[in-house]
Amino acid sequence: MIFDTSIPKTQKRQIKRFENGTFRAKEDLVAIEAPLEIHLQKESEISGKSVAVTMRTPGNDAELALGFLFTEGILSDFNCIVSTSQLDENIVTVLVKDDTAINLSQSDRNFYTTSSCGVCGKASIDAIKVSPIFKLAGFSPKVKPALLFGLQEKLLEQQSTFAETGGIHAAALFNIGGELELLKEDVGRHNALDKLIGNLWSQGMLPASNHILLLSGRASFELVQKATMAGIPVIVAVGAPSSLAIELAENNQHTLIGFLKKQRFNCYTGHERIEG
Amino acid sequence: MIFDTSIPKTQKRQIKRFENGTFRAKEDLVAIEAPLEIHLQKESEISGKSVAVTMRTPGNDAELALGFLFTEGILSDFNCIVSTSQLDENIVTVLVKDDTAINLSQSDRNFYTTSSCGVCGKASIDAIKVSPIFKLAGFSPKVKPALLFGLQEKLLEQQSTFAETGGIHAAALFNIGGELELLKEDVGRHNALDKLIGNLWSQGMLPASNHILLLSGRASFELVQKATMAGIPVIVAVGAPSSLAIELAENNQHTLIGFLKKQRFNCYTGHERIEG
Repeated sequence: MIFDTSIPKTQKRQIKRFENGTFRAKEDLVAIEAPLEIHLQKESEISGKSVAVTMRTPGNDAELALGFLFTEGILSDFNCIVSTSQLDENIVTVLVKDDTAINLSQSDRNFYTTSSCGVCGKASIDAIKVSPIFKLAGFSPKVKPALLFGLQEKLLEQQSTFAETGGIHAAALFNIGGELELLKEDVGRHNALDKLIGNLWSQGMLPASNHILLLSGRASFELVQKATMAGIPVIVAVGAPSSLAIELAENNQHTLIGFLKKQRFNCYTGHERIEG
Repeated sequence: MIFDTSIPKTQKRQIKRFENGTFRAKEDLVAIEAPLEIHLQKESEISGKSVAVTMRTPGNDAELALGFLFTEGILSDFNCIVSTSQLDENIVTVLVKDDTAINLSQSDRNFYTTSSCGVCGKASIDAIKVSPIFKLAGFSPKVKPALLFGLQEKLLEQQSTFAETGGIHAAALFNIGGELELLKEDVGRHNALDKLIGNLWSQGMLPASNHILLLSGRASFELVQKATMAGIPVIVAVGAPSSLAIELAENNQHTLIGFLKKQRFNCYTGHERIEG
């Protein structure tokens, strides 16, 4: 079997774990999330066309690009491929013969397209960042750890669709007293959060500066970015956060908690909002 | 608290559960997955512009559209909104004042764009479908249930990044003898599968007509579609399948298994490939 172990897929982070009533410093490994731009270029062309940006874990990037181009129906004949190259860690260029049939009209409907120039990895990340409206630094609710331990149970009590199907994500908004104020469910976790924030926006309730966001799964870059847009200072994920989720949460001054269990949790950034 | 229960989020399916050495018919509830097109229209315009298609669970569609437009930075002032309407169950139109600042240049980089006309829900689904290259009907490997029960353990033995971080998805290819042939990991489940299929494609190993695909999480429409493109007849998910994943698997003549446990699993379609 083939399993590429040459590219780091994890990153060490200094975190604080809350357990037995107190925080202690700990080293944690998190999965790396970083944008990859997929460029498609014909041999006679001077530069490629950026056809997609995806948030991925580094490693096997050429295979990711090839698999994407094939499964989305953009390329169908492997003999058209001249080479794959990766001049920048976050850009893969797939070079194809001039007479290759490229079915981009179909693919335009299907996936993340990008208009960024993609000069470097940083450019890619900037291209997918949205400018925040609210500054979270001034949002300073104090949250009791004991209150956090009870959130997931309150969520599960209400999350009827998950109970029935086991196949759905939730985004829930709690106030600082630990009361569930709003709950949205969806097969897509970004959709669940968009439904929640769309509701708050239409009610004039943004920023939700005195609130806690509970995510039923993992925390990604995209979800943290949406929480920033909504001005929700405290993000609590039942699952793991990605590297880029932590970086963005740190930059935007969120409190980010992951692996929420009944008696412990990991605090990745912004622990000053947690009393303990 | 607000929790919309008026729109069905689940669907009943007739499935076969394998347990205690035998199949028996069962009714199962699955989460509904369906495409939603988000249209943005100015008051003086005759028709809207389709800015995104997302695969969502129905319900709170107007909130989803508003939350998406806000969190992606396309709209920032709620006072610009005139109305939201849903003439078709899978299209939401957000009508805005003529002088509204619409920041689509940023958003084009960020999300699913669509060039479909979006006349109806069916049109939307067609727009995101890719034409299969392989017909799976003739791919008839026979799989022993006892073999399936051991797959997840074999995956976990090899899935080092998941063990370290708890935050990563896997796509794994097994042969009919139950041997793990290929394993790819990623924070995005679609990326893990693209990496796997890209590897197979570049090695001339498609269709993988005598193989089993194991997915570490849930099975969505998108993942089934990619499996179809790769000609992998048997899809086994550790988690739940969505309604649209089942429909597509049925149409494309996959065997689709979900909720793989140590002693039982649910077969959603194509059980004739499973001996028992």
